[in-house]
Amino acid sequence: MNSIEELVGNRTLRDKITTAEEAALIIEPGMTLGCSGFTPSGYPKAVPTALAKRAESDGPIPVTVWSGASVGPELDGELTRTGCIKRRYPYQTNDDIRREINAGTVQFADIHLSHNAQNIRYGFYGSFHIAIIEALRITNEGDIVLTSAVGNSNVFVESADKVIVEINTAQPEGLDGIHDIYSPENPPHRKPIPITNVQDRIGSPYLHCSPEKIVAIVHSDVKDAQRPLAPVDDVSGRISHNLLDFLSAEVKSGKLPKELLPLQSGVGNIANAVLAGLAEWPSDNLKVYTEVIQDAVFDLLDSGKISFASSAALTPSPDGAAKYYHRLEEFKNRIVLRPQEISNNPEVIRRLGVIAMNTALEVDIYGHVNSTMAGGTRMLNGIGGSGDYARNAYLTIFLCPSTASGGKISKIVPFCSHIDHTEHDVDIIVTEYGAADLRGLSPRERSNEIIEKCSHHDYKELLRDYKKRAEINKGHEPHLLNEAFSWHERLRLLGSMR
Amino acid sequence: MNSIEELVGNRTLRDKITTAEEAALIIEPGMTLGCSGFTPSGYPKAVPTALAKRAESDGPIPVTVWSGASVGPELDGELTRTGCIKRRYPYQTNDDIRREINAGTVQFADIHLSHNAQNIRYGFYGSFHIAIIEALRITNEGDIVLTSAVGNSNVFVESADKVIVEINTAQPEGLDGIHDIYSPENPPHRKPIPITNVQDRIGSPYLHCSPEKIVAIVHSDVKDAQRPLAPVDDVSGRISHNLLDFLSAEVKSGKLPKELLPLQSGVGNIANAVLAGLAEWPSDNLKVYTEVIQDAVFDLLDSGKISFASSAALTPSPDGAAKYYHRLEEFKNRIVLRPQEISNNPEVIRRLGVIAMNTALEVDIYGHVNSTMAGGTRMLNGIGGSGDYARNAYLTIFLCPSTASGGKISKIVPFCSHIDHTEHDVDIIVTEYGAADLRGLSPRERSNEIIEKCSHHDYKELLRDYKKRAEINKGHEPHLLNEAFSWHERLRLLGSMR
Repeated sequence: MNSIEELVGNRTLRDKITTAEEAALIIEPGMTLGCSGFTPSGYPKAVPTALAKRAESDGPIPVTVWSGASVGPELDGELTRTGCIKRRYPYQTNDDIRREINAGTVQFADIHLSHNAQNIRYGFYGSFHIAIIEALRITNEGDIVLTSAVGNSNVFVESADKVIVEINTAQPEGLDGIHDIYSPENPPHRKPIPITNVQDRIGSPYLHCSPEKIVAIVHSDVKDAQRPLAPVDDVSGRISHNLLDFLSAEVKSGKLPKELLPLQSGVGNIANAVLAGLAEWPSDNLKVYTEVIQDAVFDLLDSGKISFASSAALTPSPDGAAKYYHRLEEFKNRIVLRPQEISNNPEVIRRLGVIAMNTALEVDIYGHVNSTMAGGTRMLNGIGGSGDYARNAYLTIFLCPSTASGGKISKIVPFCSHIDHTEHDVDIIVTEYGAADLRGLSPRERSNEIIEKCSHHDYKELLRDYKKRAEINKGHEPHLLNEAFSWHERLRLLGSMR
Repeated sequence: MNSIEELVGNRTLRDKITTAEEAALIIEPGMTLGCSGFTPSGYPKAVPTALAKRAESDGPIPVTVWSGASVGPELDGELTRTGCIKRRYPYQTNDDIRREINAGTVQFADIHLSHNAQNIRYGFYGSFHIAIIEALRITNEGDIVLTSAVGNSNVFVESADKVIVEINTAQPEGLDGIHDIYSPENPPHRKPIPITNVQDRIGSPYLHCSPEKIVAIVHSDVKDAQRPLAPVDDVSGRISHNLLDFLSAEVKSGKLPKELLPLQSGVGNIANAVLAGLAEWPSDNLKVYTEVIQDAVFDLLDSGKISFASSAALTPSPDGAAKYYHRLEEFKNRIVLRPQEISNNPEVIRRLGVIAMNTALEVDIYGHVNSTMAGGTRMLNGIGGSGDYARNAYLTIFLCPSTASGGKISKIVPFCSHIDHTEHDVDIIVTEYGAADLRGLSPRERSNEIIEKCSHHDYKELLRDYKKRAEINKGHEPHLLNEAFSWHERLRLLGSMR
């Protein structure tokens, strides 16, 4: 283990080494903080913990917190419980902050992940006072070597007045060199993003930072709050099977090459199960262009099924990290971590022809998708990158089980209680019962396809009934507005949609 | 006036010259036709009219009709009335076909205009049998010189088995050379689209077509079905004024340069009024990157306020055409017409930093936008290109009057009865009362901003009441699902939302 001094290559910066408590004193009420981290990887731990302790004794230090995506409990948990987070962008998965967001006491806006960085540069969200960036080390030139995520770290360092660096010695050294940092110019000077293959490197492995911006360097040795992945259950397995059947048929009909096109998959158990199913795919040389690399991608890189993966973060489970983090040197020439502005960029996603596979919270009979809001009102996590991929993909696939809560909730409803992805952006819906192919179908045809192919038998007749009665009134997309949300009301009042 | 023979430069093609009636006989039931034309300009007239006549005597010839966007009555009107159109993509504005779409007797799917061409190339919509393309002339090499629109003509010619060319001698010769035809490769071979400035030409002025594909060449001399524009009324004028006030403030705060960024504006009276207001803008050298050029853009090109305009079509009113179509030679080095795959391309829109200004049919208190469906069910025109621009713009602005139907309809409602653009895609809403700036606001803050800045006084108290009562239930985006659509139900049952 190197000493912290040795990990600060730039000698003039060594006198910035301090304690997390001292660094936390730099943070003042009303500031906007830009924190590294994406889908709890690579986020700062020591300074947020110290800030929370300071707040415990001195009272809340209210701040606006930006990150790449979700972060760990040291940040969203402790800072929320001590009343420090007043505003939060652009995504979260933490129980404490979620409760406050839904109470309206933390102001939250979930924003397409690819939009964050440019809107910050355009000045739309005001000044950024402090960037807090987790690092492996600082180079001789003063540049930052990031850890398990890139996220929005580049734009935070560019935009913030001051930078606090947390050197985390619990992160694997094998991450050194895995990153590719590239920031586009603002219009009207922006040039094409020169990625034409998943594996293209277009920037620098280090995040450039003017040394005079760095005001504190602290040590931490806390691991990322990796979350365990559930084993693939029967429903997830059947969803994965139906998806692969669909993709096979696309290959057979000549609409996809046998090695497919670059794959994107959301985060979580279903997403991981779907990718795990690719172990059986008949061709090698699959590629991944996505925002998170979970265990399944590591496994498929290891087996050789996937030849290259581009992402904004590594997000293994604790088991996955134990298995692969000491072997990162082996994978480094087959993984690149990019800023989320690039991993999620419409230009690149569309050019590469990504196959987007994301999880839906709720789907309606015309193919609109709710990704975020239970019962239309209660925020779960946020839209994340799903919209970036869904809108720009070669093929846009949404996956979900047909029911939830032991069958009390139908994931397929007459009218989504909240809409994040519209009918215009959804090609395929897959449940454990089948795949509905909506391409080129009118709404009436779509509702037929979705109800017959994807819905659970407990709800199929109810959905058919709604469709039939709605169509009496005519209209391109027939609805009975006075009962469009009656299923959600039934759930709220009676505890079940049945 | 040249004879048709003279307008067919390629001599071997001259024996394909025939009558529209003969050409219409090539069309068989069940075929998919790809027709030139975008927002009724540059669409074929003679062959559709002949096909409708054939159907009148012989009975319907059911076909699927694709175009760029809306077309004229010869196509969507006559072919609908004679029962020939069974499926229609991707946009329309015609009363006859709209009636059939809403009755469910014509299957229609409105698709983001930038997605059409690539999805056709990917094979998602099956085979294209015949392209019917309006032309000014055919070159010596057999390539096609288009007329007042590019739209999807390039992909139709590439994909169709056979091509019918209508040489329209009523179109202005000054269009010759205005087009820039470029088709991207399919993934994984696609390269960056090399546009970095609005005025960049990246393709050919002519649409390449293998001469052996051309099976018929017919003459027509019918003008585009240009629609008159309403004079700027008080409400449109105030919307325009509020928008320009907002843009001025953005320039003052350094978030926009004084010559702005490339402007996009939807089609119609409000869009035209908004652009007309730019005559008062203090800086010259404005640029336009859009899908339709209406009268206001011609006027601003003429006055020198706009230095360059890129579009997929020219769509002047009859007055605008009378004023400018004989002067196209003067404008030709300051206008380029592109395929809609390029005019509406996310990559280019985002790179250039377009300011997107589109009309909303309905907006809800959280900033979701309905662009297409009256009462949630009745299709008006389609989403068109609004989503392409809204999602990818530097700034996304939606415009609408605060009320419609003499005040019986509030354009701002608790919950949009249909959602085409989500809260994630909407920055600014402008009505005649003001501009709501939603950037970075939480849903609770957004509803406050929209209600207080944009709503009509007849509805303001009702909207506040809904918001207040919804917030009792908590939630990130508070709603009362059992009355979310009660305003639409009130309108349906009582004829007014009040």
